[in-house]
Amino acid sequence: MSELAASVIGALRERGLSLATAESLTGGLMCAELTAVPGASTVIRGGVVSYATQVKVQVLGVDQLLVDQHGAVDPEVARQMALGAATALSADIGLSCTGVAGPDPQDGHGPGLVYVAIWLSSGEGEVIELHLTGSREHIRSATVEAALDLVLAHLGS
Amino acid sequence: MSELAASVIGALRERGLSLATAESLTGGLMCAELTAVPGASTVIRGGVVSYATQVKVQVLGVDQLLVDQHGAVDPEVARQMALGAATALSADIGLSCTGVAGPDPQDGHGPGLVYVAIWLSSGEGEVIELHLTGSREHIRSATVEAALDLVLAHLGS
Repeated sequence: MSELAASVIGALRERGLSLATAESLTGGLMCAELTAVPGASTVIRGGVVSYATQVKVQVLGVDQLLVDQHGAVDPEVARQMALGAATALSADIGLSCTGVAGPDPQDGHGPGLVYVAIWLSSGEGEVIELHLTGSREHIRSATVEAALDLVLAHLGS
Repeated sequence: MSELAASVIGALRERGLSLATAESLTGGLMCAELTAVPGASTVIRGGVVSYATQVKVQVLGVDQLLVDQHGAVDPEVARQMALGAATALSADIGLSCTGVAGPDPQDGHGPGLVYVAIWLSSGEGEVIELHLTGSREHIRSATVEAALDLVLAHLGS
């Protein structure tokens, strides 16, 4: 497990907040990293890997029209995924990512364009845009790192 | 990415079959391993990490009474999770796992007791019981390996 993931679990436990994930390009890595920390089950509700666009719409409630018009790699899609994860899994915080891991482009975007979003039940939220470089593996792990950093930033750690 | 995961993606692509995961103790690792393979998006629909028991019931449709009576670490829960993943994510194959990663026992079971289940739209299915030893990390990765082996066994590779 990573120190970063352990810090996130620690911060969530301290504040008594639960978290759910909604992942696209990371394919489960974000939730796997968080649940590698012993005791994660007290604060991690789980997550949805919405690899197929239809799963984003049907399971996470992302607007079909939005996906039709903008594709899956879009900041508003990321925001709706975070909200959808928190809602579907009854969590205080939703954390999401959508983007292109590569090696091939997707929806006209090259590898490395990634949106990470957080939604908190307080109504607070943020979407960040990343431009990553490197291998598929690196883009996936850098996305997870950015997402966990975003949680800590919002928990004031 | 692992060779085993690449073999599973290759076998799925060859047969034109899609797969969805439902994970408990592995927390997303199974889906992350599969989606680490370039081109996985053509056959992997996504997955649900049902870390909290309520997510197993609400998102995957596992029977509440079953969980109340037997706990989450149970072969029939694993079977229903696999079926639920395939149904909720419209996949040809559902692959699931539930068990105890440790270090603490859960529902009266010690670390290492794991159930892995596969459900295929042909009606075929199987649940296997594992007794693993070692660290939390090892129990999680050994569970993923057993699950991917189970897919290959059913695809005749």
